[in-house]
Amino acid sequence: MLIDIHTHVVPERFPDNPAPGEHSRWPCLCVRADRSHVIEFGGKPFRELDARSWDVNRRLEDMDRGGVDAQALSPMPELLSYWLPTADALDLGRYVNHVIAEMIARAPARFHGLATVPLQDVALATAELERIKRDGFAGLEIGSNINGVFPGDQRFNEFYAEAERLGLALFIHALHPVGSERLHAFPDLIPYAAFPVDTGLAAMTLIRAGIAARFPALRFGFSHGGGAIVPLTQRLEHAWQLSEGFSGTVVMSPREQARRFFYDSLVYDVSYLDYLATQFAPGRVCAGTDYPYAIQQTELAGFLAASRACGNGATTAAALRFLGLTSAG
Amino acid sequence: MLIDIHTHVVPERFPDNPAPGEHSRWPCLCVRADRSHVIEFGGKPFRELDARSWDVNRRLEDMDRGGVDAQALSPMPELLSYWLPTADALDLGRYVNHVIAEMIARAPARFHGLATVPLQDVALATAELERIKRDGFAGLEIGSNINGVFPGDQRFNEFYAEAERLGLALFIHALHPVGSERLHAFPDLIPYAAFPVDTGLAAMTLIRAGIAARFPALRFGFSHGGGAIVPLTQRLEHAWQLSEGFSGTVVMSPREQARRFFYDSLVYDVSYLDYLATQFAPGRVCAGTDYPYAIQQTELAGFLAASRACGNGATTAAALRFLGLTSAG
Repeated sequence: MLIDIHTHVVPERFPDNPAPGEHSRWPCLCVRADRSHVIEFGGKPFRELDARSWDVNRRLEDMDRGGVDAQALSPMPELLSYWLPTADALDLGRYVNHVIAEMIARAPARFHGLATVPLQDVALATAELERIKRDGFAGLEIGSNINGVFPGDQRFNEFYAEAERLGLALFIHALHPVGSERLHAFPDLIPYAAFPVDTGLAAMTLIRAGIAARFPALRFGFSHGGGAIVPLTQRLEHAWQLSEGFSGTVVMSPREQARRFFYDSLVYDVSYLDYLATQFAPGRVCAGTDYPYAIQQTELAGFLAASRACGNGATTAAALRFLGLTSAG
Repeated sequence: MLIDIHTHVVPERFPDNPAPGEHSRWPCLCVRADRSHVIEFGGKPFRELDARSWDVNRRLEDMDRGGVDAQALSPMPELLSYWLPTADALDLGRYVNHVIAEMIARAPARFHGLATVPLQDVALATAELERIKRDGFAGLEIGSNINGVFPGDQRFNEFYAEAERLGLALFIHALHPVGSERLHAFPDLIPYAAFPVDTGLAAMTLIRAGIAARFPALRFGFSHGGGAIVPLTQRLEHAWQLSEGFSGTVVMSPREQARRFFYDSLVYDVSYLDYLATQFAPGRVCAGTDYPYAIQQTELAGFLAASRACGNGATTAAALRFLGLTSAG
């Protein structure tokens, strides 16, 4: 069995913009004259899309062709909408979650769900989690930063406590990364280089906050194999040792915390995948592709089979644990 | 033979501040009542130091004890002074270079030099390179960014062309990293996590600019094992393939370019060091410690000997090539 934990959904249509205006960042899926689709935010084109983003049958065909038994469906990260007014973000998020839930209902054996909540209002996002759980989601997708605030910030503690209580997984995905302002001469390095950087820094803030010891049952998964997490963790481990656990504030070592996180396999290199899955986080690497975007890992099964550590269902065991589908969580 | 390419110098005294004032960032080495030393910039304490930063005899004792045959001496990165008025930065840089040259003259078989130039004025920095070469330096230390501008920016091309012509190595060291503004809740993550991030992003901009093909004889070395370079390069490689060489603008693949850079061994983990030295950049990993700072790799010889790929002089061969001391450049 093969489970792809990193795939994205965009609804085929959106509710009307509740507050149109020059600075609105509400989404709209526009159909061009040539019948191609583009998602716009506040009237600005963001990405070309096709039916794979919303069409269950098209998706199942691709899954069957690629030998993928199940996908976790999460919103396209730009839909996380942390920058919208809270009430609008709540409405939009519930709508997106509803679309994902409907896709799952069409083929419940083939899909799992990762929902979104408006983390710009931590209390509201926390209160939303019972609904998410009731609607059958395995967990949530959250950004590598929330309007510039990294997820290790203590303001999110109540949210983590409730997600842990409900057994909801948290899939951290790169979003509006740090460094974008310095990369204006190299705009394509924002998705290709700053995304994994932001994911890595997000993980460092969680580790520095001692999150794995404080919420021991909470399951974090990181996109893009955790991005830059490996070299950052090695250095933070050294600092943790030198500082005697950051003056006793962090009980569990960075390396040990990192071994309790989950990672997708989206690292594009078999030798690095093996390093991740054998040395850094044994048993914690799940398959993940970024389907259906251009940057996705194609030929997933072959990529995993070429690895010493990720073939023969090893990623499936990790995905089942991450998604809370096995008692071995 | 063991050569440590990553060690830093601070002069025991500095020239008087040419422009004292509230916003000055001129350095001063202050001796406290208890005879401990602290370097201040513009009157603000920056770091406690001791004689290892300037005392050749003390340094030679440490080298002998650790089995280090030679060190490359480079300025403490905060002395790169890209934020000073150009004329002041030139004066300060020449002074620091002079102090390093004097240290080398005391034990020329044990030291090599990496100088500084005021890269905030590229033409001036470029013109300075002949003096650097004449004074016997192996190369230069430059920041992972120059006042926020990454080293792949095309404004530095004339500088790279001249450094290549003169055979000067460039050692890129993390400095004032991207992400600092978002890490205010986690200030110790700036040196521990944002430093390697900035080094990795610096490398990505050089790769995206196709630097290894454009200046094929120019030797770049990266501190902290290149920081986040490994996972970033794998993703950039995938993007390069998808985009057909970024629309034909970059001839040499990111992975191949990364194999032509040099790296120090300051990654604090033997398994990751082995990955770097066997899979990512064979023959390109030099020993490097960050001597004499708290974060340094102690027990260098033992750390390297524990590695499959970095024992038995392998790092020395790489260091000799990086520093231009062998014809195999």
